[in-house]
Amino acid sequence: MSKIERVAVVGGTHGNEFTGVYLYRQYMQNKQYGTRPSFDTELVFANPRAHDENRRYCDHDLNRQFTQADLTNPELTSYEQSRAKAINQQLGPKSDPRTDFVIDLHTTTSNMGATLLLLQQGEIYRKLAAYITVKMPEVIVIRDQDHLPRDEHNMLATIGKFGVIVEVGPVPQAVLRDDVYQQSHQMTQHILDFLELWNTEQLPELPETVDAFRYTECITLPVDALGNRLGMVHEHVQDGDFKPLHPGDPIFQCFDGSVVTFDGEQTVYPGFINEAAYYDNNLAMSFHEKIVIDVTSKD
Amino acid sequence: MSKIERVAVVGGTHGNEFTGVYLYRQYMQNKQYGTRPSFDTELVFANPRAHDENRRYCDHDLNRQFTQADLTNPELTSYEQSRAKAINQQLGPKSDPRTDFVIDLHTTTSNMGATLLLLQQGEIYRKLAAYITVKMPEVIVIRDQDHLPRDEHNMLATIGKFGVIVEVGPVPQAVLRDDVYQQSHQMTQHILDFLELWNTEQLPELPETVDAFRYTECITLPVDALGNRLGMVHEHVQDGDFKPLHPGDPIFQCFDGSVVTFDGEQTVYPGFINEAAYYDNNLAMSFHEKIVIDVTSKD
Repeated sequence: MSKIERVAVVGGTHGNEFTGVYLYRQYMQNKQYGTRPSFDTELVFANPRAHDENRRYCDHDLNRQFTQADLTNPELTSYEQSRAKAINQQLGPKSDPRTDFVIDLHTTTSNMGATLLLLQQGEIYRKLAAYITVKMPEVIVIRDQDHLPRDEHNMLATIGKFGVIVEVGPVPQAVLRDDVYQQSHQMTQHILDFLELWNTEQLPELPETVDAFRYTECITLPVDALGNRLGMVHEHVQDGDFKPLHPGDPIFQCFDGSVVTFDGEQTVYPGFINEAAYYDNNLAMSFHEKIVIDVTSKD
Repeated sequence: MSKIERVAVVGGTHGNEFTGVYLYRQYMQNKQYGTRPSFDTELVFANPRAHDENRRYCDHDLNRQFTQADLTNPELTSYEQSRAKAINQQLGPKSDPRTDFVIDLHTTTSNMGATLLLLQQGEIYRKLAAYITVKMPEVIVIRDQDHLPRDEHNMLATIGKFGVIVEVGPVPQAVLRDDVYQQSHQMTQHILDFLELWNTEQLPELPETVDAFRYTECITLPVDALGNRLGMVHEHVQDGDFKPLHPGDPIFQCFDGSVVTFDGEQTVYPGFINEAAYYDNNLAMSFHEKIVIDVTSKD
């Protein structure tokens, strides 16, 4: 068992996700929020310039800049690429990080509720998922590209030895919602409590399994040959994050009045439905499959 | 009775309100949407550069640039100030406009539903309000600064002889929602139908009164002496647009855990609650009073 000695709580990785920025400020003013007896916590405001400009990012999405290859590539010099290198110096280096556990605070415009994104596999994640869903049964656990080796993962939360993303919605960009703020704060507190109990080997008895979702693929909006969008997410799917989408169900409403149905062969569970930030890439939603995490696994 | 001979339907006045931009494109491709036998309709994409940059505006809020004084002030030269002058030339001039009726399409991140904003007083507005609420009973009618002389009103919809704003939410900035898109389209079609019936003196019998709201004031978030926000909209108010807010009700949740209550002396009806675009000015919401529009008035 790996003891967690240094933790980082990160807000403002995306400049227009206000919840993390305001939680960062609150935690700065109230150090007891981040502190636990068995570890130190560093608070990080990841992308202040993008927040000043009220944008997700200035040049590149900061939360895609953290592969080991990119962090060590001297030719990557944009604002966010430079911020990634600075954060790597502050919390990493990724190859041998001084930070044991990173909590990166995000929000979404999608109706996902409170979600915990696991980017790697291992005992600490399985037990954390079980602990959080006992404390907050409404939390949805998502495994996101957790098959990747840590050095190939491009998200900020992989800069430490371990790390997770707290992702809560729906909230528009550039808005603070009381409920989303409180859920983000609450989940962060439970994660910190978990790490304290983990360190002191005082974890309570946990359920043997956790129902969860695993990300499988991104789905793009229908576009014409010139890349112009031909439709939008159908109201049958809108706000239905993590509800089943069956083969033949409506998925896109085209502007010409026609409807595109889901042509897959098995039921999927969409997430990040109609997320504003994914419009740059014409992404409509992500698909997930249902999985069960075996908390007692010895892997 | 003033005959309506030239109409303008305007989208993209705010670059990150996608619904109007996509409706503009649809109406361009399907001219029958805008056309009616008794008048011509011009379609206008008001702020294409802001849309390209996925921002509300580049330099200044375009929808505040249309007072007669500003339109004729040669010292106002920013991008939106110049766009306002170009639109004034295209649809106006404001002092003697060639456009009789302007429909300006907007969206909000607030839970306002489908609203019709009336910026001036007069018979055509009273009858339009009655007609729309018969066709779409869910529509909320708002009188917004309709006491101002038209040349002092700074919004784009006042560039024609008459004009209204179609304002629908909730939808995050930079997102198309099927329901919001359809409601905006539907209300625009009903307004155009109304104008046709108005011109041909074939309006159906209308209700004698319409329940509506009148904007009274803007409410700012609590801030400290340095202008830092101390709290956010309380969950008691969040999403409660046009629901009564009584004296003593919670209105702001402060980050330190304290709650600010509404210290007014009479019940008000908030709108634009926690609208993302108003954060620049620390605005939390608008207050409205309930009014009844007398459709039979001879004023």
